[in-house]
Amino acid sequence: MIERYLEDFTVGQIFRRGPLRVDRDRIKSFASEFDPQQFHLDEEAATESLFGGLAASGWHTAALTMRLLVESDLKPAGGIIGVGFEEFRWPLPVRPGDELRIETEVLEVRVSRSRPSQGFVKLRTTTLNQDNKAVQITVGQLLVPRRQSE
Amino acid sequence: MIERYLEDFTVGQIFRRGPLRVDRDRIKSFASEFDPQQFHLDEEAATESLFGGLAASGWHTAALTMRLLVESDLKPAGGIIGVGFEEFRWPLPVRPGDELRIETEVLEVRVSRSRPSQGFVKLRTTTLNQDNKAVQITVGQLLVPRRQSE
Repeated sequence: MIERYLEDFTVGQIFRRGPLRVDRDRIKSFASEFDPQQFHLDEEAATESLFGGLAASGWHTAALTMRLLVESDLKPAGGIIGVGFEEFRWPLPVRPGDELRIETEVLEVRVSRSRPSQGFVKLRTTTLNQDNKAVQITVGQLLVPRRQSE
Repeated sequence: MIERYLEDFTVGQIFRRGPLRVDRDRIKSFASEFDPQQFHLDEEAATESLFGGLAASGWHTAALTMRLLVESDLKPAGGIIGVGFEEFRWPLPVRPGDELRIETEVLEVRVSRSRPSQGFVKLRTTTLNQDNKAVQITVGQLLVPRRQSE
């Protein structure tokens, strides 16, 4: 398996993965454990909501996006370890049966000032549905080790 | 049940909820579905990782935080509908057996320019463990209807 160190990432690289189908029953069971609101649980109640129909919890979308990232060829050495996000949006709801895929682009690569054996890769990750509409957009940093540090 | 409209939120309000215990087996089963990386799945492999021991997926922490928010007295009319975040960090890992609670503070309340029947409430939500250390910090906006719009 390829493992990428900080030196292996370059600005403009794009990694893709998917599609992954969003299951109607899993939308409801995820929501009942983590986000028990009517528009994620019940079709009829959801039609009265802002979403106008059953929608996945944003955290379900985020979790499925992570699954796609882990399965992608991103493969940073030491694993995908997110430090945080400077942008995080859900432009559109995710619906039962949606087919999600991701595109993640390297925006910045830099060595850590405080710990020069590691660095940060800034990624913009867009989660798209089967109509090529973005349902989640994040810009965040991963912690990635440098090859020299070994 | 109380339902809060935009007019009911004021800067400085704080809502709290918790604790909620993080289950070791659920850390692993959540990760195996959404974030299948060794440091979330296997104690022994995790000791070799940056985390130095089994840690919950950040998305598991985010999902548990949402559960606490839904259970809190925040209760915006129409539900908790997040637009996005301008800050999102995981300062420390979440461990098996951690007891998580949240504190969420209203930072800003404003009417939407494009749709004056609704507005935005900016919240800083801090997820804390049993040692009062922050494990997740977010600053994000909720969409909240105005009372006059009804």
